Amino acid sequence: MATRRHLANAIRALSMDAVQKASSGHPGAPMGMADIAEVLWNDHLKHNPTNPAWADRDRFILSNGHGSMLIYSLLHLTGYDLPMDSLKTFRQLHSQCAGHPEYGYAPGVETTTGPLGQGITNGVGFAMAEKLMADQFNRPGHDIVDHHTYVFMGDGCLMEGVSHEACSLAGTWGLGKLIAFWDDNNISIDGHIDGWYTDDTVKRFESYGWHVQSVDGHDADAINAAITAAKAVTDKPSLICCKTIIGFGSPNKSASHDCHGAPLGEEEIALTRKELGWEYEPFVIPQDVYEGWDGKAKGAEVEAAWNAKFEAYAKEFPELAAEFKRRMAGELPANWKQVTDAFIAETNEKAESLASRQASQKAIAALAPTLPEFLGGSADLTGSNLTSCSSFKHVSGKEPGNYISYGVREFGMYAIMNGMALHGGLLPYGGTFHMFSDYAKSALRMAALMKQRTIAVLTHDSIGQGEDGPTHQPIENTAGLRYIPNMDVWRPADSVEVAVAWVAAVERTDGPTSLVLSRQGIPGRKHDASDFEVMRKGAYILSEANGNADVILIATGSEVDLAVKSQEALAAEGINARVVSMPSTNVFDRQDQAYKDSVLTPGVKRVSIEAGVTDFWRKYVGLEGGTVGIDTFGESAPGGVLMKHFGFTVENVVKTVKSVL
Amino acid sequence: MATRRHLANAIRALSMDAVQKASSGHPGAPMGMADIAEVLWNDHLKHNPTNPAWADRDRFILSNGHGSMLIYSLLHLTGYDLPMDSLKTFRQLHSQCAGHPEYGYAPGVETTTGPLGQGITNGVGFAMAEKLMADQFNRPGHDIVDHHTYVFMGDGCLMEGVSHEACSLAGTWGLGKLIAFWDDNNISIDGHIDGWYTDDTVKRFESYGWHVQSVDGHDADAINAAITAAKAVTDKPSLICCKTIIGFGSPNKSASHDCHGAPLGEEEIALTRKELGWEYEPFVIPQDVYEGWDGKAKGAEVEAAWNAKFEAYAKEFPELAAEFKRRMAGELPANWKQVTDAFIAETNEKAESLASRQASQKAIAALAPTLPEFLGGSADLTGSNLTSCSSFKHVSGKEPGNYISYGVREFGMYAIMNGMALHGGLLPYGGTFHMFSDYAKSALRMAALMKQRTIAVLTHDSIGQGEDGPTHQPIENTAGLRYIPNMDVWRPADSVEVAVAWVAAVERTDGPTSLVLSRQGIPGRKHDASDFEVMRKGAYILSEANGNADVILIATGSEVDLAVKSQEALAAEGINARVVSMPSTNVFDRQDQAYKDSVLTPGVKRVSIEAGVTDFWRKYVGLEGGTVGIDTFGESAPGGVLMKHFGFTVENVVKTVKSVL
Repeated sequence: MATRRHLANAIRALSMDAVQKASSGHPGAPMGMADIAEVLWNDHLKHNPTNPAWADRDRFILSNGHGSMLIYSLLHLTGYDLPMDSLKTFRQLHSQCAGHPEYGYAPGVETTTGPLGQGITNGVGFAMAEKLMADQFNRPGHDIVDHHTYVFMGDGCLMEGVSHEACSLAGTWGLGKLIAFWDDNNISIDGHIDGWYTDDTVKRFESYGWHVQSVDGHDADAINAAITAAKAVTDKPSLICCKTIIGFGSPNKSASHDCHGAPLGEEEIALTRKELGWEYEPFVIPQDVYEGWDGKAKGAEVEAAWNAKFEAYAKEFPELAAEFKRRMAGELPANWKQVTDAFIAETNEKAESLASRQASQKAIAALAPTLPEFLGGSADLTGSNLTSCSSFKHVSGKEPGNYISYGVREFGMYAIMNGMALHGGLLPYGGTFHMFSDYAKSALRMAALMKQRTIAVLTHDSIGQGEDGPTHQPIENTAGLRYIPNMDVWRPADSVEVAVAWVAAVERTDGPTSLVLSRQGIPGRKHDASDFEVMRKGAYILSEANGNADVILIATGSEVDLAVKSQEALAAEGINARVVSMPSTNVFDRQDQAYKDSVLTPGVKRVSIEAGVTDFWRKYVGLEGGTVGIDTFGESAPGGVLMKHFGFTVENVVKTVKSVL
Repeated sequence: MATRRHLANAIRALSMDAVQKASSGHPGAPMGMADIAEVLWNDHLKHNPTNPAWADRDRFILSNGHGSMLIYSLLHLTGYDLPMDSLKTFRQLHSQCAGHPEYGYAPGVETTTGPLGQGITNGVGFAMAEKLMADQFNRPGHDIVDHHTYVFMGDGCLMEGVSHEACSLAGTWGLGKLIAFWDDNNISIDGHIDGWYTDDTVKRFESYGWHVQSVDGHDADAINAAITAAKAVTDKPSLICCKTIIGFGSPNKSASHDCHGAPLGEEEIALTRKELGWEYEPFVIPQDVYEGWDGKAKGAEVEAAWNAKFEAYAKEFPELAAEFKRRMAGELPANWKQVTDAFIAETNEKAESLASRQASQKAIAALAPTLPEFLGGSADLTGSNLTSCSSFKHVSGKEPGNYISYGVREFGMYAIMNGMALHGGLLPYGGTFHMFSDYAKSALRMAALMKQRTIAVLTHDSIGQGEDGPTHQPIENTAGLRYIPNMDVWRPADSVEVAVAWVAAVERTDGPTSLVLSRQGIPGRKHDASDFEVMRKGAYILSEANGNADVILIATGSEVDLAVKSQEALAAEGINARVVSMPSTNVFDRQDQAYKDSVLTPGVKRVSIEAGVTDFWRKYVGLEGGTVGIDTFGESAPGGVLMKHFGFTVENVVKTVKSVL
């Protein structure tokens, strides 16, 4: 039987060899963390390599994602469907083994990592999801949700601000099943970290209420004992600080940043092989090493045990079991269409004048009873974002619930939500001021990249916000979010469009949605029922021109009402204007050309109206069209004053239309 | 003589009255922190209300900027040019008293605050700037740079991740003259913070190496003693944790979030007046209270003393004194034009094939000797961003220098740089991967809003980045940065354009610049000298069509070379193409129409070529033009493979041109 160190060396060899073959990559971290990984994966991790989708598996996250060869090695060695040929194509086009671990590429990769700090933050989301699901589904004697979340992270993750947001919350939430390992190797890309990173990390995490241990990261017994101790602490997350040597085994490059992000080189690799006593050719793993790693039999066994447990649960609680399956599969409840059709119709019937954030709250209240997977929240703006309603139970400290006050932690919130969505069983949405989506842009992008169903409720969506001034008035942000590939942005114009946008966001299975909502009131509007369907196409003719259209006014959100009023004023001057409401440019862009042409008739001049940057609208109005928008920072004044000041008036729309005709 | 409490109550009264008059704002924090502010401003703050620009003043930053009435009250009461009439127009259009403190609006506001966590981070920048300037300019017996930076902050600032990045660095840097006050009032917008914020903040800041004290924030003597003790600790930043009651004085709303962000209401204000013993009408300050606050005489005295000190310094070190004045005024050195003209010409002479990040490093190396105000840095990617060169002395821990390894702290870096720029005397630039400008978007926006000269060096600018994959490949980010009002983005095409872009960035006096640079090599190009001037216009004809142009190819950065090659291929097919290099859309947009028309001749079809989102380019190519770009996430593979895979080939450009002609 191979020794632990020999098993760990398999990771080291695969990592240095794959990086060398790719002429690119990061051998240092996998070589440094190999011993920790060996103990965790062989002695603790509950998983089944032949079924990476098993609901109650432990989750493993490599927050220092640049060390991707560590996870590829582990997945390959323990028996996942990741053949050696894939490792040999590390960092090549369409390889399962992308430069950083990409969710959906290699089985067993739970989340895409690489942008530092977000892996540990996703991990907090995974662990919180486990806790909330356990609270909702477990019954005495039936712990069907009962797994750990393990996170590896480096100095970079700990320096990133988002690690503070996430780990502070993890402490407050008492996430006892979250166990993180810090690769304490004193090296980051600029060199020895003493010059720029001198935190007492033990003390820092204790200040968050974590259970903290320190071990030699190359001492398997010590690591083993630390993991056992961490698991025994059930009311606090655990950090295991592992003193390691980056690039362990490399005689000339270990303990230096030379091995962080570049191949070791053939010569050094040969020396390392010698040093490690690893006598095999590149990409060759001897049988006894494979045997020492193989997790398939044990995995099948633990999953079978869980399946038996789940059967007993299903017998006693058949409805809960069915609901658990539905939610983990991400399917909508059976009455979904009925409930939402009724809600949209009823909203239309009322046609209330509301701020779109208020309309959003009504949508949340209407959908929540039929959507127990809804997990609401806000980054300390619940009363402003209007993201809660009476049916929610608020999480408070260690007490579970289904609405979360995330505190003033926008980035943390959205990255935690990504982890929750990836875990399964929950449909997280979270609110903040649209302006502060800037703090969280990377997490929103990651949701889009990973095709996760999360919903960002972004209120106070432009200068209509008013008195808080330019630091709180998004101008370029709606356009910016629309440019994120696979992000659906909706900026709805009235309570019906808000309802439709919420339904679309929940029904979306392959990506996130941003709902961009007004602070200020918007006049109510009663639609023809036929509008409900075309709204889902992202843009539609809200009000047709009287006769052939001379011009098409394209507006979104709070400016649609201005477009309608302008249409009347234009009619008085003999100009026939069509009003197109375009709540979602992203969704509209996916429609077929015939539909698009029916809304934006080719050859007809266009004018866009949106309280945001105008250049974005050139894609619809072209060079010959006109734009009513704002390209400067806002000001502090009542919202109505600002709208007028910046030209959101019928007068200015009419003037703009005339200038292009 | 008015008591301390009575003086502090002036802040409370002005704050609640101004918020009430505006029907909007945040009375809670000013009322809670009034006692702390009174002690700090009356007994410690070194400032001269009649000269807010005095170089050696202490800096005061209200990181919890929503409590803006606190600073407006202080500025008014101590004698700044902020009349009562301005306080009465709080939150109205063009008032000096904007909803949040806006730099450049009211004298004495050192930085714009409101986006939480950034004020304390700016503060770290101010304090670091003081330290670095002191290191460069002070001489034995001549401490001409010797002032404190004081920061007020609330729970929100401490929850934000960026506070971790900044405060961790402040500890490492040993910023003894940074003194922060935490308004520990247990309240944030969602209510009592126990449910979402349970950090042991004392321990947290001790883990960063700060000196931490805890006091009753309504006990003037205790506050006074704590400030004195904090000033005595010169090798560590200080945090004074002040236990306060939010909305102090309001009988029914204090200690609750009801007074955080809404007017108290007339009735409660009347009760509060009674409770505080403040018998005056709204906006009336009795003479003895004004006298108790007046800082003008004392301010004139301390500035006069410093002026005498500076005179003695100037006598002994005339060149240093002149240089100090130049740098604090933000003026360029006398030989600037000579040096930069020579460097551009020389770069053109060499016409080297380089990655634009390499060309950038050469520009840095060329400019650094003549620009001692240059303060380089990188968020732990020095070797990748190529932001350093041999002439820099690297900051290491508490040792000063002029190049900073900020660690993996992108947001912190750019927000610290904002503070340094605002302090004066330094010209900070900082590098990270372009992708991670996402982490720092808000700080980049704040630089633009405050018109500060900072330079973001953003390398690895698209899929050409290669193997690191989609998490490291910006697609929408260049477009996103271009949309920030007052941000100048440059994506230069060769080493000459890089040199010109750097010179433009340094010469810019009213805003920040983002330099978007390639990882991969770009063929060298020798320009006509006449190009140097037109490059500064943001776009120019790089290669004219042979005869009348049938089409204009507009390209940026690494894709300009592809445009030139495509021009040749098109010529072979009888299509005359003009190649326009457009390194800066922002700068080009500011040119007069005649110049713009000379570059983009009206009526001529256009095709854009840029490895980024295509919709951005509709503003130049219109609906009839073509685009070569990328609207999906990238992949992990060698950069050249990806460029081909995503259609950045002569073939595809030719095909696109033909499709629009």
